[in-house]
Formats: sequence, C-alpha cells, structure tokens
Amino acid sequence: MRAVVARNHELVVEEVADPAPQTGDALVAVRACGICGSDLHTLEHAEHLVDVAEAIGSDLAFDPEADYILGHEWCAEVLELGPATDASVAPGDLVVSVPYLVRGESLLPLGFVNDAPGGFSERMLLTAALCVRVPNGLDHCRAALTEPMAVALHAVNRAGLAAGDAAVVIGCGPIGLAIIAWLRERGVEPIVASDMTPRRRALAVALGAHEVVDPLTEPVVDAWRRIDGIRPLVVFEAVGVRGMLDRAIFEAPTGTRIVVAGVCMEPDTIRPLIAIVKELDLRFVYAYTQEEFAATLQAIAEGEVDVTPLVSGTVGFDGVAGAFAALRHAGEHVKVLVEPGGPAAIRPVSL
Amino acid sequence: MRAVVARNHELVVEEVADPAPQTGDALVAVRACGICGSDLHTLEHAEHLVDVAEAIGSDLAFDPEADYILGHEWCAEVLELGPATDASVAPGDLVVSVPYLVRGESLLPLGFVNDAPGGFSERMLLTAALCVRVPNGLDHCRAALTEPMAVALHAVNRAGLAAGDAAVVIGCGPIGLAIIAWLRERGVEPIVASDMTPRRRALAVALGAHEVVDPLTEPVVDAWRRIDGIRPLVVFEAVGVRGMLDRAIFEAPTGTRIVVAGVCMEPDTIRPLIAIVKELDLRFVYAYTQEEFAATLQAIAEGEVDVTPLVSGTVGFDGVAGAFAALRHAGEHVKVLVEPGGPAAIRPVSL
Repeated sequence: MRAVVARNHELVVEEVADPAPQTGDALVAVRACGICGSDLHTLEHAEHLVDVAEAIGSDLAFDPEADYILGHEWCAEVLELGPATDASVAPGDLVVSVPYLVRGESLLPLGFVNDAPGGFSERMLLTAALCVRVPNGLDHCRAALTEPMAVALHAVNRAGLAAGDAAVVIGCGPIGLAIIAWLRERGVEPIVASDMTPRRRALAVALGAHEVVDPLTEPVVDAWRRIDGIRPLVVFEAVGVRGMLDRAIFEAPTGTRIVVAGVCMEPDTIRPLIAIVKELDLRFVYAYTQEEFAATLQAIAEGEVDVTPLVSGTVGFDGVAGAFAALRHAGEHVKVLVEPGGPAAIRPVSL
Repeated sequence: MRAVVARNHELVVEEVADPAPQTGDALVAVRACGICGSDLHTLEHAEHLVDVAEAIGSDLAFDPEADYILGHEWCAEVLELGPATDASVAPGDLVVSVPYLVRGESLLPLGFVNDAPGGFSERMLLTAALCVRVPNGLDHCRAALTEPMAVALHAVNRAGLAAGDAAVVIGCGPIGLAIIAWLRERGVEPIVASDMTPRRRALAVALGAHEVVDPLTEPVVDAWRRIDGIRPLVVFEAVGVRGMLDRAIFEAPTGTRIVVAGVCMEPDTIRPLIAIVKELDLRFVYAYTQEEFAATLQAIAEGEVDVTPLVSGTVGFDGVAGAFAALRHAGEHVKVLVEPGGPAAIRPVSL
C-alpha cells in the first residue's frame, strides 16, 4: 500500500507492506486523517520524545531515527476483522478511535511508533474494541475532527470552570479554535481570543469568541480588561512555542488558572517569581479519556458543536510534505485533512 | 536608633532617624526578627523586584538602589500609639503583625520599602489595627516564627490535600520544615523529605517527616515509591533555586500537584512537554491571608505545632551580615533571629 513515511526529518511517499490484522484488530481503509501540530513538532523535534519517555518511565520503544508513519486523527472504514475477533463494528462501518493499538500488555501510540502505520497511509490496523461507529450519517471529514476536538474538551474539563468565569484563549490554531467552540457550548462569556492572522481571528468569531485581537496590537489580557475585567479569568495557552508560557504568566491577573494546552517540545524559560507573586496555577493538559472521546463524537454528530469552520483543506499523500511546510507558516490554513487519493496540493474545502 | 541598612547589596549597621508614629500607627521596639530566604534573595537580586512590580501592575515605589531596611518576621513590644489611635493593643503588649504598613490607600510591604524601617532595626512603625497580641505567655522567639509558619500554612492550604494523600517536601530550609510541621499536624502520611545536609534532615524528622533522604543519594520521589508509591502525591518545592522546578517536573509521577513554595527570583528553565505528558499542576503560592496569620499564632501558642526545632540561633545587628553569609551556605543554621543587643556572631540557641 502507499503511505507517507517519516524518515530523517523528511516525508516521502512510498510503497510499504500491507498490514495484516491479528486477533482483536480491525483492518481499516483511512478515509481522512488530520495533520496535527504535534505531527509538525515530532518531525522536527522527535529527539525530545526520548527525553519524555525517560521522564515518564515509559518502555515505549520509538526510534525517531528509523522510519515511522505519522497521523493520529483519522476517520476510517472497516475492511475486515482479525481472526476470531468479536467486535461491535463490522466491515463497511465508518469508525473513529482513540489512537492506540493494543499489543499484549502495551498500548502502541499510533502515529508515533515504528511498528504500525499511522493515519497517513491507505490502510492501518486499529484495535476493534476501541473503534466507535460514526453515527447520524456524519461525513468522514467532520468525524476526523473527533480527536482534536476531544483534546480541547479535555482541556476545558481540566480548567475547572465555574459559573461566571471568563476565558482568554491565546492562539487560534486548531486546538485554540476547538477550545473556543467548547467554551461557547458551555456558555462561557466573554471568550476573548488572540491570534496574529486575520483568517484565524475570523474563524474564532465564527466559532464563538466574543472578542478577538491581534496580540501585536493589543495584549489579549488587556482586551479582556477592556470588555470585562471583573470575572474570574481562565487563560488557555494554545500556541506551544517558546516564550508563550512566560508571556501568559506576565500578562495574567493575580489568581488566574493557566491551562497549558499548547505543546512546546523544547525547554522553555519562565519567571517563577512573577507566577508566585500572582499565585498562578499552571495546569498542563494532555490527550483525553475514552469517555471524552466518545462524548466528542456524539456532540459533533448531534450538532452541539460545529466543527465545519475548522477544516480548511484536503490534500493527497503527494501533497503532505507541502502541507506541513504551509502549516508551519500559520495563516491561511487551520486543519488540513489528508485523504488517500486526494490532490497533490492543498485544495480548500468548504464543508 | 540603630538599624541594619541594606545599601548597594551590602549590609551596614548605622544610626538612622527614629520613626514617629502617625494616626493609626503603633511605635514598637523589635524584640526579635527572623532572617528569611527572601531577605537573602532581595539583597542579591533586588533588580528582579522591579520586573515583578511591572508584571503585577503595582505602583510600589521601591528603589533597591536606595537604602532600605530588611526584616518582615518580627515580634515586637508596643511602645506607644500614634495620636488619636484607637487600637486593641496597648503599650507593653508583645505583638506580631502581617508585614504591611497602611499609608493612605497603599500597603507598604515592610522590609521591602525605602520609606519605613523593616524589622532589622531597634524600633519600627506598625499599623495598630493589624497587630495581634501574643497570647498564652508565648516567648518572643517562638512568636517571631508566626510569619514563616503562616507562609507554610498557606502553601499547605493551597495544596488542596484530600484524605489519603501523601506528600513529598523538597528542601528542608525554614519553609520546607514549616510545611512538614503543618503536614504532620494535618495527619498526612507518609511525609517524605529531602535535603543535602544531615542537620536539616534530622530536623525534618523532629518536625514529623516519616522518611528523609539526601537527594544526591536517592531522588526523593524514588524514596516515596520505596515506602508508599500508591497514594496520590502532592510535591512541595521549597528550595527556590534554578533547576529545582524542572527536576520536580521530571521526577513527579503523572497527575501530581506541585506546590511551588520556593521563591526562585531568577528566570528558570523547564521542560513543558514533560509536564504536559504527565498532566502536572503547578500551584505557585505566595504569602497568606490575615486569617491564616492569626490562626498560625494561635496554633503556635496552643502548642498544636512546635516551632522549637526551627530556631537555630540568635544574632545582634553587628552579626547580621555574617549571618547572611552563613545562611547562604545552608547547613548548620535554619532560622536565625536578629535581636537588638544580641551577639556579634550567631549564638546557637536551644529554646
């Protein structure tokens, strides 16, 4: 089958071995798989993952110097089940799943392993018991947004929002925008967001932000002070590059909770004294629970959150490397979906 | 009167103007005033306070290039009240107070201002309404521990401890030891503490730690795993030098709350990716409430917490510079109390 292989910090399209389902697996055909900021980070800074594995005492044997296939935000169609596999999904079903493949006592994080293909491939193996059927005739493009929307739901849940809280969202990439969608669904007001690009600020408004600013023109916390300034404030950091955390610490009012959803893979410098004097809480968030993932799919399928504005384009395998380059210069695109058989350059879509 | 003046990062003993009480003030004679880690930090890194004032939008006009008198952990005797001052304390009373002097609409942070003497002086002005009489015949040395013990109580309160939580305390200086005393008073078990010096580890045991380790021999979280490893863990960082926060992030198990009580005045580097993957909470803590301060004095006076092991020596004005130098090389001493008329070198005390 064809796949987009990550090798020596580059992406190359190649024929790779077809995966064969074992007992408990579902062999699926990928219909769409989103490109995530962590895919960009990993291709560039994969060496930091080794550091992390040590810190969490993981036995994860991921070798970023060897080939691997990225992609963990898929929607796929079940082709066949492994031998003697009892499952609630069947061939022909459109499914999503949390990005883990059960192998013995281990969970392989699909998209970040050498031994199983991620979603930037024609076919892949999923654990059948983790697959969830896409309901309500929801299309595969919107369904593929389940994973990043679940990340954002988890961040909002971890924020511990109380009635009457206000929110600031720093950065309107896919995760920042998804956080805005959930905050709006929760009735949080005001939601004040910042991003340097006009396109993303417009999307933030479409998804529910009450005020958006260019941080080069007005610091986002100043914008919150201008239109509110009274309610308890929760800040969501959704950029994840060096310096953003310190800037959030510097700008945040006393007593603020800062939810760190942006993934900065490099060491970063903060001024602890400022965080101390303001008694800030930094809540670092990661992934989601299986329940949050299922609830997210349901909310998208029921129309409780509208993910339509998030999808800005689709691209085939031959255009993935170019899409990575385009996404590094955040601006025109937000979530780009990789579709096997898609075009060689990003094709804007309007769902 | 005589005082220890901070000037150009040095301490000099000089005659300074006697303070005159205004309406609302109490003129007091200092009986004892503890040397705090933040006194050492400020003398060395006072320039960082300007940065902080900007970050919190403070109008505090502290000029670390001009003279100031440190000291914010005092016990003092009331000499006289300002004109037309109605107060619940009277001349002859032994008092403590939160270290703020009311001036118009401002609160001057005593010990960190140019315009009013801190506690390393013979006499000072307090706001009479903030003074609390020392009860139960408690001596002035133990009473002077109210302020640092209140800092530790606040840190423990902010930790949000639940029944069954375990605690790790990194660093057994005065704040780390005071945290241990409160954790023991709360019934937390096990309390696992680390410090590089044998004297401080022995004091940690005296104050209630169930296990103490030299971090150069065994990482403190490994020690917790050795004797417990099951209960939800709260980590208290009470060192406050560069690198400690990242080390705590690296060592902490997934889902840990890290209470940052150590005051690192310099920019510090962390690895956010590790904090993210472990979903850590960093709770930065500062000072205490007026209620926590009063409750601390009461708990000391009632014998609910025993501060006796914390006090390792007393020193007169002429010995303060030497005491600062000795305290920079943490080891022999923990809390050194400055007593006007005290000895020219630290005299060990056993209360």
